[in-house]
Amino acid sequence: MQDVISYINSNREKYVDELKELLRIPSISTLAENKTDMMTAANFVLDKLTDAGMENARIIETKGHPLVYADWLHAPGKPTVLVYGHYDVQPVDPIDLWDSPPFEPTIKGDNIYARGATDDKGQMYMHIKTAEAFFKTQGKPPLNLKFIIEGEEEIGSGNLENFVNKNQDMLKCDAVMISDTSLYGPGIPTLTYGLRGLCYMEIQVTGPNRDLHSGTFGGGVDNPINVLAEMISKLKDKNGKIKIPGFYEDVINLTKKERENFKRLPFSEKQYAKTLGVKELKGEKGYTTLERVWARPTLDCNGIFGGFTGEGAKTVLPSKATAKISMRLVPDQDPKKIGKLFTKYINKIAPKSVKLEIKDLHGAYPIATSLDDKATTAAANALSKVFGKKTVFMREGGSIPIVVTFAKKLKAAPVLMGMGLNTENLHSPNEHFNLNHFHLGILSSAYFLDEFSK
Amino acid sequence: MQDVISYINSNREKYVDELKELLRIPSISTLAENKTDMMTAANFVLDKLTDAGMENARIIETKGHPLVYADWLHAPGKPTVLVYGHYDVQPVDPIDLWDSPPFEPTIKGDNIYARGATDDKGQMYMHIKTAEAFFKTQGKPPLNLKFIIEGEEEIGSGNLENFVNKNQDMLKCDAVMISDTSLYGPGIPTLTYGLRGLCYMEIQVTGPNRDLHSGTFGGGVDNPINVLAEMISKLKDKNGKIKIPGFYEDVINLTKKERENFKRLPFSEKQYAKTLGVKELKGEKGYTTLERVWARPTLDCNGIFGGFTGEGAKTVLPSKATAKISMRLVPDQDPKKIGKLFTKYINKIAPKSVKLEIKDLHGAYPIATSLDDKATTAAANALSKVFGKKTVFMREGGSIPIVVTFAKKLKAAPVLMGMGLNTENLHSPNEHFNLNHFHLGILSSAYFLDEFSK
Repeated sequence: MQDVISYINSNREKYVDELKELLRIPSISTLAENKTDMMTAANFVLDKLTDAGMENARIIETKGHPLVYADWLHAPGKPTVLVYGHYDVQPVDPIDLWDSPPFEPTIKGDNIYARGATDDKGQMYMHIKTAEAFFKTQGKPPLNLKFIIEGEEEIGSGNLENFVNKNQDMLKCDAVMISDTSLYGPGIPTLTYGLRGLCYMEIQVTGPNRDLHSGTFGGGVDNPINVLAEMISKLKDKNGKIKIPGFYEDVINLTKKERENFKRLPFSEKQYAKTLGVKELKGEKGYTTLERVWARPTLDCNGIFGGFTGEGAKTVLPSKATAKISMRLVPDQDPKKIGKLFTKYINKIAPKSVKLEIKDLHGAYPIATSLDDKATTAAANALSKVFGKKTVFMREGGSIPIVVTFAKKLKAAPVLMGMGLNTENLHSPNEHFNLNHFHLGILSSAYFLDEFSK
Repeated sequence: MQDVISYINSNREKYVDELKELLRIPSISTLAENKTDMMTAANFVLDKLTDAGMENARIIETKGHPLVYADWLHAPGKPTVLVYGHYDVQPVDPIDLWDSPPFEPTIKGDNIYARGATDDKGQMYMHIKTAEAFFKTQGKPPLNLKFIIEGEEEIGSGNLENFVNKNQDMLKCDAVMISDTSLYGPGIPTLTYGLRGLCYMEIQVTGPNRDLHSGTFGGGVDNPINVLAEMISKLKDKNGKIKIPGFYEDVINLTKKERENFKRLPFSEKQYAKTLGVKELKGEKGYTTLERVWARPTLDCNGIFGGFTGEGAKTVLPSKATAKISMRLVPDQDPKKIGKLFTKYINKIAPKSVKLEIKDLHGAYPIATSLDDKATTAAANALSKVFGKKTVFMREGGSIPIVVTFAKKLKAAPVLMGMGLNTENLHSPNEHFNLNHFHLGILSSAYFLDEFSK
């Protein structure tokens, strides 16, 4: 490993220069005007994979932006790692708020500023450089390697989902390496081993068949907004427990070890509340804030509307009221089952005076990898070695559907070894990436391949 | 009275022709383009008052559309009646839905179709024709008469409110005759003796200082929509009683006689529910539907909004949620006091995790005239005589602020002797007025003046 590490260390500046080149390409997947830039970015990735020493490097056309694939499969008996990342980026609006142009990478202190720096060009590129280091110093990596890099992560990964479903043999692997998440804090080696799922519902309540004058009819009929509010108030009890029967049935409780891991993390409730501008944090009783946002199911209204929403007063007794309500799920909750339980409960608590329309708008499965998983252990060891600290294990409250697809379809453990920081303005103006973490990420990736190959 | 009645009967066609003339003037108070039409209508009313025999007829300029005033005050010792009405009308949109042009009065069967037919040109004009009948047959009315006809009822009566406040001596009277409400049903002689008041509030709940990702933060902080829904659910109990402490303190309960009066009215709960398209009527327990919509205080959400309100799913944990909540009031509730009790209660039930902004947007006082009031009794007798049936006493769930102003400032009982019908499309396309009711209204007005003069 000494040669590999030396190579990475001595090429530090060259790697940053190459990353700058990639960051100059405005590969915004959602904008039609950037279609050729998408192809330019895909070809850049393709060339760098070939230059690194990977084989079979090719562009795979989809109905949208292309995928880039490469492999090296000459280590029989050794495990196979699939590296996933994305070359597309978010739009740059509001452009006025950028201190330097989003596609002119600018280094200030330890950070490189550009759209896509941390999400995900910088993080994805680490693994290509790790591969290069092995090929240039050892002639080969220590195990079988595959890369699948997409251009549609920021617009939902729909075409990659399809591709994975149809090409399970081609992508077969023992672990999926993904660097598209964050460290718990600067310099803290972190593995994210769980993601929450989602069940997103919409309820429309219809009372009278038209908007009524609230003077003439007020008191005569049920008001759909009041009814909807009443129903929402019955979704959680005063301890923050969700009252839908069967909701917690499939929840795998946090283990003692997991809870201890979370408790050891530096976390200030006071600072967290202050940052969010609230006087008091609130959630399910009996759990810490980190447990609640990472590893417990929740229910939130994402939107509500009905009646008069303009300025001032209009005395209407509305015909309709609508709420969007989503539940974050944890293993082994099933979004389809939860959607059905939700619908059943809402129908049960609704008064006869209103009509209901309930829609299941969107679902995503939760995932959590065992802390004893072989790839996870290898990654944890690699990170500890590089950062010189014990690796911390966190979960993430959001959902990344493609991760679940990889895990389910390829039956391989995802390794979420993110090197970003939550403070690096991803999706916002002045996105940046800490170049120390970029370097540490390349080293960690190298140690991971080494560890996992044993 | 025989001569007066004969005169009214023999001039029936002439009166309709004159009404048509008035209905041809597009006096839409809210549209700047109809400013001259407003003056034309005011002058029409002025001329007809003069022609009838009234004295001191004059246009009173305001900051908006003019008032028309006239009087005849030569019956010392006799009571004084002030007739109020309005010559302005609502806009005509959507024009496509009219079967005949809104300003080309068209008679079909018993009805005359035109914007303003029932609200309020037809109803207001009745009283001018009654005055004429007295002057032409008796040389004078049986008591002192004043007319104040405004052109801004459809836009809030702001200038008339000011005028009444400043000219209480000029408008001094013993009763205010107003025909701008409805009969309980076709051919049913009706007096409306109560109007509800209003207290219209807005609550804005702020949770976190910005919209958050519901995955990353869901479960960590209170959600302002959920909090708002919970607070709304605490405003009423399961029997439909409003839970704000002190809310019912000043409510004058319905008398046994009033409740009996209401119970005698033909009313089908089933038909009412069917018309509104609901399976079940709902409201305060212990009261009939008519009692609830006319004479009991209520609370309704008029609007609610917060978070994502577009199509589909967006996983936001919103920063803010807002509700517009109004309470209909009954005598002797005071909208200002109720606003304060509401604010106090909301502050009390709000969790510490959110910030509140509560606004009192609008208030109106309730009113109810005693059934034993002299003018009310005279009007009831007059109506019974003309319609050949016992007069029914109803209330109205909405508010008419100018009625309360008359009652409070002039200390005179309002007599709401409406001849419209709820089915006559006021404020909608194809507004119409039943010409039998127009004729019966003129006769009723004549008998009222006669009765009240005794």
